[in-house]
Amino acid sequence: MFEKMFKNVHERSPIVHCITNYVTVNDVANIILALGASPIMADDIEEVSDITSICNSLVLNIGTLNCRTIESMIEAGKTSNKLGHPIVFDPVGVGASKLRMDTTLKLLKEVKFSVIRGNASEIKAIISKTKTSGGVDVSLEDIISEDNLDKYIKIGKEVSKANNAVVAITGPIDIVTNGEKTYLIRNGHKSMGRITGTGCMLTGVIGGFIGANPENVLDSTAAAVAVMGLCGELANQKTAERALGTGSLRTYIIDYMSNLRGEILKEELKIESR
Amino acid sequence: MFEKMFKNVHERSPIVHCITNYVTVNDVANIILALGASPIMADDIEEVSDITSICNSLVLNIGTLNCRTIESMIEAGKTSNKLGHPIVFDPVGVGASKLRMDTTLKLLKEVKFSVIRGNASEIKAIISKTKTSGGVDVSLEDIISEDNLDKYIKIGKEVSKANNAVVAITGPIDIVTNGEKTYLIRNGHKSMGRITGTGCMLTGVIGGFIGANPENVLDSTAAAVAVMGLCGELANQKTAERALGTGSLRTYIIDYMSNLRGEILKEELKIESR
Amino acid sequence: MFEKMFKNVHERSPIVHCITNYVTVNDVANIILALGASPIMADDIEEVSDITSICNSLVLNIGTLNCRTIESMIEAGKTSNKLGHPIVFDPVGVGASKLRMDTTLKLLKEVKFSVIRGNASEIKAIISKTKTSGGVDVSLEDIISEDNLDKYIKIGKEVSKANNAVVAITGPIDIVTNGEKTYLIRNGHKSMGRITGTGCMLTGVIGGFIGANPENVLDSTAAAVAVMGLCGELANQKTAERALGTGSLRTYIIDYMSNLRGEILKEELKIESR
Repeated sequence: MFEKMFKNVHERSPIVHCITNYVTVNDVANIILALGASPIMADDIEEVSDITSICNSLVLNIGTLNCRTIESMIEAGKTSNKLGHPIVFDPVGVGASKLRMDTTLKLLKEVKFSVIRGNASEIKAIISKTKTSGGVDVSLEDIISEDNLDKYIKIGKEVSKANNAVVAITGPIDIVTNGEKTYLIRNGHKSMGRITGTGCMLTGVIGGFIGANPENVLDSTAAAVAVMGLCGELANQKTAERALGTGSLRTYIIDYMSNLRGEILKEELKIESR
Repeated sequence: MFEKMFKNVHERSPIVHCITNYVTVNDVANIILALGASPIMADDIEEVSDITSICNSLVLNIGTLNCRTIESMIEAGKTSNKLGHPIVFDPVGVGASKLRMDTTLKLLKEVKFSVIRGNASEIKAIISKTKTSGGVDVSLEDIISEDNLDKYIKIGKEVSKANNAVVAITGPIDIVTNGEKTYLIRNGHKSMGRITGTGCMLTGVIGGFIGANPENVLDSTAAAVAVMGLCGELANQKTAERALGTGSLRTYIIDYMSNLRGEILKEELKIESR
Repeated sequence: MFEKMFKNVHERSPIVHCITNYVTVNDVANIILALGASPIMADDIEEVSDITSICNSLVLNIGTLNCRTIESMIEAGKTSNKLGHPIVFDPVGVGASKLRMDTTLKLLKEVKFSVIRGNASEIKAIISKTKTSGGVDVSLEDIISEDNLDKYIKIGKEVSKANNAVVAITGPIDIVTNGEKTYLIRNGHKSMGRITGTGCMLTGVIGGFIGANPENVLDSTAAAVAVMGLCGELANQKTAERALGTGSLRTYIIDYMSNLRGEILKEELKIESR
């Protein structure tokens, strides 16, 4: 099933409209292309409705939000909702400032998202609705392990139900849930946290998967999370073998995504259904 | 002749002012440096005239245009025109939104360009003057081949004459024309379309070539297109030999540009005059 | 002592708030992570005070300044000053436009900086307070050598005293001074000037070092300059051995930063005290 969804991305080659941050935007575009989809970045309010109309899905990421682009996100989101396009939301650092929290709550109110993806601290902040003390990286206390897994599954389900969206909480173990059915994914490697943008890239990859598989957002989100994790694992292995570092790791993640074939997915995806 | 133009870039080391998109701006800066020229990015209307005055050429790229930068592009363009600096225009995704089309038509009206570079869909859209359905990538129907070559040469000449500019249409075969004389270039590799920004990078490279060779815009544009294509070919070969992917391809394109020597150009540039 | 400061970065893992340019922002984020610190980019005036409050240091870089972000820089700077956070300022291309010069003078007046880092042309421009003819790269006449070293040490001390800040002038020989004590650093390689952003990355690395060592800004700035130079040396050596180019050089600089261990610093840092 997950291989089929990956195949659909290649065959349908969805166009993914991204309003994302300027820190990692190049990597987001390149990994979407590597996946076999087609990215288009556009954030001026005068064109976001036009652009999103020719696309198959929308990615909203608040990593470097500003007053101008917040309005564009809402406009693009509403247009996508009208057209029935799936939308994925990445509340980067939502707990780090009042602006990010207010914007997140506004977006969740005015736009219907298909998927919300964040680390455990970000997803928790959405529930608490208050600015916390953390930055854009997950807090140490929020690192998902076998020991605290049930707690985060519960949090994921709560955010999912409250927003009628699939929720993906990423960490050492990834949780993807629609409030009823939950997938646990054990692909990935901790070194991915040592480069900027692996979260943003994953959100872009989810945009590609749900753009090609809008009829099955839960499963295609799980597939995206596992596929991105697998690329991270493979890239980490090559980086370590060659005694290279995080610059090469970033390059190899995109390399592996661009060379990925369906066969390897059958063997290597570690997706558990609960 | 083309080697001489490449040599001029190294000797004159032109400064290239770029108002370009934030998706690929880092690659544009790095490939201009790799070429032996010097990039400067500046887009605030309060400084674009100052900046462009100390430069040798100007690059305008509408890939992530917004209301603020559109005005800056016009201001920089007018100042460059007054100073007689060559300007290259990249109408990224001009058919994708009304804003891009309106901005393109406004720029073409208010600024005199030396070179307009786009894929076949973008150059066609400039003639039709209407929003089309495509994104930022070329439409399948607009991929240039030996079979439809004459049609696109004609389109190139038409846009060239209408705007009194050299037009470069890039694709499997590249067309560079000033309305009278035409070059066909058969360097390049299709894998270049699998990374973001090869078009933007080429536009930056053209900025370097025409900044160093303002007395011969047609030939130096053809040289730039061929040189960029050659780097793509070589990078693709190395990527394939090493079983790497599109992340490495991007790195190697810049590597080859930075190591290029005049001798290889004599043997490897595939430029046909028509 | 310098190894200890490096160790402190790893142990304290400071959060570094960056308001920087969109050309090199991704490299700045990745090298800060590679160093062992944690970057957060945020430039909207509605959130910069919130963001900088949860950070340990602030980086201000005017490489692609605009009217919106200038205000944010001042706001973030004032908040950081109130909180006693160290701030590093990078006056990219300050001589290239009136806007950059005015902004630099305004920032120097309204914000108390811990460190000012630039190339020799930029630091000279701060003294002259007038727009010069240069771009963002150092002028040929301003390349620091053993012959003109004393002149630039004097300039560095003058800017340091006038602004009550540590000044780092980078070039073939780097000068770091607090007006009294001066360090000369002979790490680095000229190839670093062939990629965009090595200056911006260094400024980010200084942000990491002073965020972890706020009690000793002079020494930690010297350590940052030497460590960045060492990564450039090592990366240049690997690039040359493998006959690669500037694309790989950039990747390897980040690789080396991520793999750096305290032991190598003891042997390879070339820091002379004067």
